[in-house]
Amino acid sequence: MNYNSIRRTISRILLMQAIMLLLPLIVCIIYKENFINYIAFVATSSFCIGLSFLLKIKTNSSIKIGPKDGLVIVGLCWLIICLIGALPYVISSSIPNYIDAFFETCSGYSTTGSSVVKNVEGLDHSILFYRSLTQWIGGMGVLVFMLAFDIGQNEDTSIHLLRAESTGPSVGKLSSKMKFTTRTLYYLYIGLTSLEIILLIIGKNPLFDSICISLSTTATGGFSIYNAGLANISVYSQYIISIFMLLAGINFSLYYYLFIKSIKVFFKDEELRVYLGIVLLAVIGISINIYNRCSNFEEAFRTSLFQVASIITTTGFATVDFAYWPSLSQLIIIILMFIGSCAGSTSGGVKVSRMIIINKSNFRRIDTKLNNDRIKSIQINHQSLDSDIIHETKSFFSTYILILFIFTLLISLDGTNDLITNFTASLSSISNVGPGFGNVGPCSTYVSYSYISKFFLSIEMLIGRLELYPILVLFFPRTWQRY
Amino acid sequence: MNYNSIRRTISRILLMQAIMLLLPLIVCIIYKENFINYIAFVATSSFCIGLSFLLKIKTNSSIKIGPKDGLVIVGLCWLIICLIGALPYVISSSIPNYIDAFFETCSGYSTTGSSVVKNVEGLDHSILFYRSLTQWIGGMGVLVFMLAFDIGQNEDTSIHLLRAESTGPSVGKLSSKMKFTTRTLYYLYIGLTSLEIILLIIGKNPLFDSICISLSTTATGGFSIYNAGLANISVYSQYIISIFMLLAGINFSLYYYLFIKSIKVFFKDEELRVYLGIVLLAVIGISINIYNRCSNFEEAFRTSLFQVASIITTTGFATVDFAYWPSLSQLIIIILMFIGSCAGSTSGGVKVSRMIIINKSNFRRIDTKLNNDRIKSIQINHQSLDSDIIHETKSFFSTYILILFIFTLLISLDGTNDLITNFTASLSSISNVGPGFGNVGPCSTYVSYSYISKFFLSIEMLIGRLELYPILVLFFPRTWQRY
Repeated sequence: MNYNSIRRTISRILLMQAIMLLLPLIVCIIYKENFINYIAFVATSSFCIGLSFLLKIKTNSSIKIGPKDGLVIVGLCWLIICLIGALPYVISSSIPNYIDAFFETCSGYSTTGSSVVKNVEGLDHSILFYRSLTQWIGGMGVLVFMLAFDIGQNEDTSIHLLRAESTGPSVGKLSSKMKFTTRTLYYLYIGLTSLEIILLIIGKNPLFDSICISLSTTATGGFSIYNAGLANISVYSQYIISIFMLLAGINFSLYYYLFIKSIKVFFKDEELRVYLGIVLLAVIGISINIYNRCSNFEEAFRTSLFQVASIITTTGFATVDFAYWPSLSQLIIIILMFIGSCAGSTSGGVKVSRMIIINKSNFRRIDTKLNNDRIKSIQINHQSLDSDIIHETKSFFSTYILILFIFTLLISLDGTNDLITNFTASLSSISNVGPGFGNVGPCSTYVSYSYISKFFLSIEMLIGRLELYPILVLFFPRTWQRY
Repeated sequence: MNYNSIRRTISRILLMQAIMLLLPLIVCIIYKENFINYIAFVATSSFCIGLSFLLKIKTNSSIKIGPKDGLVIVGLCWLIICLIGALPYVISSSIPNYIDAFFETCSGYSTTGSSVVKNVEGLDHSILFYRSLTQWIGGMGVLVFMLAFDIGQNEDTSIHLLRAESTGPSVGKLSSKMKFTTRTLYYLYIGLTSLEIILLIIGKNPLFDSICISLSTTATGGFSIYNAGLANISVYSQYIISIFMLLAGINFSLYYYLFIKSIKVFFKDEELRVYLGIVLLAVIGISINIYNRCSNFEEAFRTSLFQVASIITTTGFATVDFAYWPSLSQLIIIILMFIGSCAGSTSGGVKVSRMIIINKSNFRRIDTKLNNDRIKSIQINHQSLDSDIIHETKSFFSTYILILFIFTLLISLDGTNDLITNFTASLSSISNVGPGFGNVGPCSTYVSYSYISKFFLSIEMLIGRLELYPILVLFFPRTWQRY
């Protein structure tokens, strides 16, 4: 293990977190909040700076990061910023219990959006803003942020950090010029968020609400600032948020192509087409299924569109309590939770591209049985896939399911919740969605779980956000061997 | 497609079914049953013989069967014997509706044990015996039976039939002498069944009941001949049946080794050890979890042992209504349903050996990430596995899950049952278990489903029993191309 690189990278991340923690202070000042809130953010920020300097002691400046280090660093960084990020909640007494606060922070950074706060409207503005901000930072990636704006990072080695943190089967072609790429992605991300804020303000939403909702939307996070979720927002806002959720579920690299190439290239992307196809099918299916519960077709369509967009992008916003929908719609919701959106987006889940790879490979297997010849390679976007990526994708798929069930077992030990609550809580956590069914439905919170279960779910959210391996390797003894 | 071979093999299978259909006639005579029952079996048997001769016309005797033909022949044979096997139920008016009867037949041959008959005790003895007999034949395999006792079959080509019908990732070393092997397996099967019959008679169960229960046990089928399942059988019988269910979940080739080698070799088998380990863990977990619902420890242990044995071997017998157990136990049941028992046994599910391969391969993947070196092969029973088997196993796993969800979606279109009922009905069908939760719990039947859903579930049972591909290829247009 390259302890030198680990300490230096964590040290940098902590500095970044220190700066980020000062942003809610502006909100504190604007709303003339209680003095304890100032202390909460300043103290945590100072703690980050102090720890950052401590970690930097006796490290040399040459950072060489291999693939293994990349995994470990990313896993550790996320764990640490979540452990520290919980402090403002505790100090400000918004969420007095540390485990609860840790849960809320993991839920934030992992863009899950699960909450233990029943009365969200009772929270101060700075805390609400901080909650949404963690999602926004977590959406595109904590280390991606560092790579994009931190000077002096070695380009050759940071690819491993980017690989470990970004979503989907593999980092695409864009990664040749690391800093340029990551910065472009972040500008796109900022642009998308700003556009939504403006459109929501035009729709007569208050400025503060528009900012918080937009931060949560483009990150596909799903923290709501209202007790009733988004049930009471206007029809216009529902459509705007639906569209922006769907946009956030698309591979951000594609937007880059959209600018430098054409809209034709954009829509030729196989993953995008399948993603939009799934959305379309799901919207049609649910619209028909819930039609008799709605007053007209527009309402059925809008509700269905909003919920499908919210779930497939693993945002988790809700305008209705879909836990009371008919079983067919419930099943569609669960399947969407599992699939998630496109690789390279801010969403969670297995990702559409992985499902395409798995399905193509499985079909090819049957085809081979019928032809008695050797296995031909499969193609995505007219490019042959390396057999190792297929292998890796299938490993990911089965490991994902294994972890899903292990954590369902772990939280079932509580004995307080029913099977469907436990299963959907676990699925919702690993896929970074937020709500599930039963006691963790869109109108409920995770308070029914014990502290130990909340801790397990927190870890599961991080495992899901980092696509398994960065957190999993931390539990392997050989990770910690010096070399 | 080799239509000549298909017709000849189906023709032989039909003759075999014609003979099998005469066995319940003996029961008819003993119990002096209604005349319609005689007609039911004789008419169906005659129909088989007629069809058999029709199919044999203009075929030449040289049967050459390739891997592709093997899949198609096995898929078609099972479909045809289920379509015809439904007739005695309809003719005898035991199950007047054809789709219901088809469901019951598929459930029988696939050793699922799901039923649409609410009042099982109202059925005639011959029908009950026929029901259990279909399970017994289906357990070891319809074509295996033919290969074992049919003279004149070409040894070289029948390996493909055996491969397509037997369970688990690959046919083991035993397959070098086909006829000897299959016959040995059947003798072991008959021996095991006979031993259970004797032990049940010693336990003061009536002869007829002992035979039917034993046929269903060793086939891991699960058809009960009592309305209350096996809730009212004696403690002694519960232990006997538990043990025989567990024995039927073991790879039958291992018993062969037990005879020719030693008990040490038997217990050195990796799959067997993991299988027994899972059983042990599950029994302990459930015993503790349901302890406060039982009058003493022995009852908790016995109930737990019986249910774990019944579910992991995908038999589906029940002494209690486990649909009302705590959520932890319910989850364990669902996981066991999915896993199933050993390859080469009569049970369903993904199989323990496949789970071992997948887990070892996934661990090896993480290990490789930590070592930055190339992927080493994984071993089972100290033998390196071919990378193609690993690939194949992972494809199987993901295809299994895909089909599980597709059929859950299909039966959800009914709109009558809840999510947990639909999901467990689908899981129970593909894994050939029988009962699920909710409206398809161990004390219920599948009558709540529409005819179209019952048809879907019937097909799903066959897909599960034949381990996906023999039925799936029937839906591929290129399967039917002549060559």
